[in-house]
Amino acid sequence: TEVLSHKESTTGVGVDQELISSVPSWNPTFISRNFTDAEIAYCRSQPSPAASFAARWVGKEAVFKSLGVSSKGAAAPMKDIEILPDASGVPTVNLHGNAKAAAESKGVNKVHISLSHSETVAIAFAQATSS
Amino acid sequence: TEVLSHKESTTGVGVDQELISSVPSWNPTFISRNFTDAEIAYCRSQPSPAASFAARWVGKEAVFKSLGVSSKGAAAPMKDIEILPDASGVPTVNLHGNAKAAAESKGVNKVHISLSHSETVAIAFAQATSS
Amino acid sequence: TEVLSHKESTTGVGVDQELISSVPSWNPTFISRNFTDAEIAYCRSQPSPAASFAARWVGKEAVFKSLGVSSKGAAAPMKDIEILPDASGVPTVNLHGNAKAAAESKGVNKVHISLSHSETVAIAFAQATSS
Repeated sequence: TEVLSHKESTTGVGVDQELISSVPSWNPTFISRNFTDAEIAYCRSQPSPAASFAARWVGKEAVFKSLGVSSKGAAAPMKDIEILPDASGVPTVNLHGNAKAAAESKGVNKVHISLSHSETVAIAFAQATSS
Repeated sequence: TEVLSHKESTTGVGVDQELISSVPSWNPTFISRNFTDAEIAYCRSQPSPAASFAARWVGKEAVFKSLGVSSKGAAAPMKDIEILPDASGVPTVNLHGNAKAAAESKGVNKVHISLSHSETVAIAFAQATSS
Repeated sequence: TEVLSHKESTTGVGVDQELISSVPSWNPTFISRNFTDAEIAYCRSQPSPAASFAARWVGKEAVFKSLGVSSKGAAAPMKDIEILPDASGVPTVNLHGNAKAAAESKGVNKVHISLSHSETVAIAFAQATSS
């Protein structure tokens, strides 16, 4: 008897928000420290780069929260949490380095993300799942 | 040996927000194009119809995002995404037409939704699941 | 043949937001009616107690919404929904009394929560799951 049993479960959720004006997207050091080259190219191609950087920034925070790891100690390696649109334009999370290791240590193999920005506020929601 | 194995998984999440004042609920064309008769009757019965229309509007956007379909091309048929309270007052998503077809093509058979509005901002979260 | 089949599913989601200034955390009656001793001690230890109380308050509302119970009739026993950080600082939901009974009647055995506050707004997201 062969049984293929799927076991997906939510391991954590994360929400974050910021005023777009409070995310220093005009600061090259902030950008290069926290965003990958692909993210930078994408955000700069958008109608409002500042809004896109801010949405991605709160997205990274939401993903970090969804992983349920302690934020005490070393600063979160936000560049290790990469959020890029897939072929349909749906934002998709790719984890690298320490973030990937943290996810693996919790059995997380997929993080769903959604981003939104109004004229002033960026908000994001993330859901980490194991299977 | 018979095995009944449930396989639910999240296929996508969606978050959206708008200033209530930026949703043109005073515009009869906007309302009739985007809301079903049952939604209109419900929102008009609420203490603040403008807030209710705005919450439902961001709810439809959040559901649309959770379905993970491309927004390029044809405008999203927002009227096909209907959000009405169930007997307990819990907002519930009913999909029709193109939105229903898009959900079925992704195996989505349930979309959870939650709505919130303050005096100025409406926000919604949606989670699409397959099983 | 032994089959261990996990069956987790989302039973509801909840989102809530408030202006921090609209949550009367300066009011001892409001605080003692709605927060447990452990929550009060935690919030008072934080850099901005008002923001922490407000985030927890919208968190309780989001958990309540995620349980999908009618809010008509008796006021929600918000003190029965307790949100405290775990050892890693991740906010965790403990249900007591009526909230625990409501969750059990729906088969909910875990509610995931995430909280966020900017300088002015607190927001929370909750996801109730059964397994």
